Amino acid sequence: MTRELPLDPKRSALLFIDVQNFCVRRDGGEFKAVPDADIIGKYAYYFERLKSVAIPNMVRLQAAFRTARIEVLYTVIESLTRDGRDRSLDYKITGFNVPKGAWDGKVIDELAPGDDEIVLPKSSSSVFVSTHIDYLLRNLNVKQLVLAGVVTDQCVESAVRDACDIGYLVTLVPDACATYSQVRHDNTLRAIKGYCRQVSTEALIKEIGVLRGR
Amino acid sequence: MTRELPLDPKRSALLFIDVQNFCVRRDGGEFKAVPDADIIGKYAYYFERLKSVAIPNMVRLQAAFRTARIEVLYTVIESLTRDGRDRSLDYKITGFNVPKGAWDGKVIDELAPGDDEIVLPKSSSSVFVSTHIDYLLRNLNVKQLVLAGVVTDQCVESAVRDACDIGYLVTLVPDACATYSQVRHDNTLRAIKGYCRQVSTEALIKEIGVLRGR
Amino acid sequence: MTRELPLDPKRSALLFIDVQNFCVRRDGGEFKAVPDADIIGKYAYYFERLKSVAIPNMVRLQAAFRTARIEVLYTVIESLTRDGRDRSLDYKITGFNVPKGAWDGKVIDELAPGDDEIVLPKSSSSVFVSTHIDYLLRNLNVKQLVLAGVVTDQCVESAVRDACDIGYLVTLVPDACATYSQVRHDNTLRAIKGYCRQVSTEALIKEIGVLRGR
Amino acid sequence: MTRELPLDPKRSALLFIDVQNFCVRRDGGEFKAVPDADIIGKYAYYFERLKSVAIPNMVRLQAAFRTARIEVLYTVIESLTRDGRDRSLDYKITGFNVPKGAWDGKVIDELAPGDDEIVLPKSSSSVFVSTHIDYLLRNLNVKQLVLAGVVTDQCVESAVRDACDIGYLVTLVPDACATYSQVRHDNTLRAIKGYCRQVSTEALIKEIGVLRGR
Repeated sequence: MTRELPLDPKRSALLFIDVQNFCVRRDGGEFKAVPDADIIGKYAYYFERLKSVAIPNMVRLQAAFRTARIEVLYTVIESLTRDGRDRSLDYKITGFNVPKGAWDGKVIDELAPGDDEIVLPKSSSSVFVSTHIDYLLRNLNVKQLVLAGVVTDQCVESAVRDACDIGYLVTLVPDACATYSQVRHDNTLRAIKGYCRQVSTEALIKEIGVLRGR
Repeated sequence: MTRELPLDPKRSALLFIDVQNFCVRRDGGEFKAVPDADIIGKYAYYFERLKSVAIPNMVRLQAAFRTARIEVLYTVIESLTRDGRDRSLDYKITGFNVPKGAWDGKVIDELAPGDDEIVLPKSSSSVFVSTHIDYLLRNLNVKQLVLAGVVTDQCVESAVRDACDIGYLVTLVPDACATYSQVRHDNTLRAIKGYCRQVSTEALIKEIGVLRGR
Repeated sequence: MTRELPLDPKRSALLFIDVQNFCVRRDGGEFKAVPDADIIGKYAYYFERLKSVAIPNMVRLQAAFRTARIEVLYTVIESLTRDGRDRSLDYKITGFNVPKGAWDGKVIDELAPGDDEIVLPKSSSSVFVSTHIDYLLRNLNVKQLVLAGVVTDQCVESAVRDACDIGYLVTLVPDACATYSQVRHDNTLRAIKGYCRQVSTEALIKEIGVLRGR
Repeated sequence: MTRELPLDPKRSALLFIDVQNFCVRRDGGEFKAVPDADIIGKYAYYFERLKSVAIPNMVRLQAAFRTARIEVLYTVIESLTRDGRDRSLDYKITGFNVPKGAWDGKVIDELAPGDDEIVLPKSSSSVFVSTHIDYLLRNLNVKQLVLAGVVTDQCVESAVRDACDIGYLVTLVPDACATYSQVRHDNTLRAIKGYCRQVSTEALIKEIGVLRGR
């Protein structure tokens, strides 16, 4: 048995994690109060990584998976109420609240969900804890889960760990992920290498193309 | 220890189950293809029960709980996609599909959810299996769960059983529930009497009023 | 799609529910304080049903499934501690406590688990709520779940409902189940007929035999 | 709201993760085939850390929590069968199998569980995925969870993440944990500092003592 299996399109899905205005846009809820000095200072790596690497790769992934007719899902930080009373204790403590329906909770325009694609609001780091995604993936007959999004060492890593523990074969796409520094990004990739295979956007798109060419 | 505890408004919530066009309206998805002969025949009891007893009582409950500032939630049979590919195996077999966003999936007008109340789409009998309601109730600090809706011996009964098993103190409001015959309704009430206290709409509204009067 | 599928032995398992001294023996915890008058009065049907119908059928089922090399599992009411502090709120209220390791928690001798068969202690009606059986069945690659045991309209019915909701194809064996009266037994079979196929011990053993004969 | 809350003994529990022969002993399943050269080479830090720091601190924690009458639980990597067919896909791929009842699955002697303390066999990194510990903690009325054990950046970190997401206030005791290098240990502590408070054994024992002195 091995984790290093190519995708079976009929048993696969691609999940984008938290690629939403709140935490990807300079004027999103997480950053709008951050002074410019920090945006061009401590957050320079993050926004540059998003712009030059992660978002373009996510856009390519999304297109390739749609073409291959593999299910694409999204999860976003968003409460089910405006005041966030339904949020996790963790998000209450952290002070995260993306009110139901707010712009902050929308997937970024570049990656806008299709009309019949599934978007799951969540209020915890791991999408498996605060949504019923495991139930949905089961109903969709998904066995292999591809993960991309932000930030690599928090919500993405938690999803990798839980997905693996639950029994999915997880493929992480590191160059379609971002976090606040290259060191943090690299550390997490090492830490979770036993829980997932790690494949570049380029290689994964090729893999899917080959599958389609069959 | 006892199940026969009055509600603590700060730890309580009211959940309406499947009170939606699909299964409560004559022109809802479940009944629109049923001939008139059956509507006035085998379904006469059900629709009369809804009109004369269950819906009026649900409306009164909703008003009383809102006045007492107790959380009111709703669950409805509804897929997260239009073609229902995310539905449970059970709903696929049964042939139930309420497409995302359809009129069939809306709570009936008489009981329309408030602007900031939570509505959870589900695709299984028990709301605890196909939604993350347990997580939400935990975040809302709810310990006592009040249940009403349709049909008594299917989705309502499954919710009573799971809620009790999980650790909620369950209050069922039998006269705010309906199923297809009085016999089935009575049988289920007997079968689950060990899992919940059973209180009439009238008595429960009084109980809440007394609490508010404190 | 249909629920009326014969078992695929490689994807099936048989689960016996609460067939343990506590609730099946006259000197088990649930009955030892019950006066003889009630045992030969209100509980006469139950004990007779167990002795003449349900237990003999369970014994036959167990043998047939073992011969067919289909996984056989057991769940029993049992706490993980002696004082039962880990029990569900429901069992605390009801007053059920089978201390860890007690005779009351053992599967009855006639149906003694094999050396490498799985026994899951539980403290709720539904085995899916207070054990991680869903995780185990997934790891065992089980899709079709056969249920038998006691009592039909409580722990067995709750297991049928949850198993169906989760996505298993459920086969209930009514003549390998028992509850306190024929009326209750018949009511529950009708109530849950939409959640499972119902097959007699005789027919199910034949079905497995045919499969083996292939 | 804050994560930096001292323990409320009535709402707290201490969980030891994987402190078992399999992965803590030189002759445990994970290391018995490892050549001496590696044990005194790449694993030198790990075994020294266990011997000099982590195990002594765990022993002190265990004693202090028992004295304070705070629940102490244990989880161990262990299958429910001898051949491990019930294990997670991840453990099957990784090749981990601690057969039911094996010496490898026992908590190490220094930390032997008390007669009425709970030990949960698991087959995934996170104890929350492959056991029903969340249900038990709920029944035990636990809100604050203290974590210690091995290895810091795998099973311990996964437990921190899930416990936090689910809604527990998590206290991690870094000097009662160990992993394969100081760098990995430090990286994980930084990565999860937003999910838990981190307190030394010394400070936590004082905190409990003060509580007891009230």
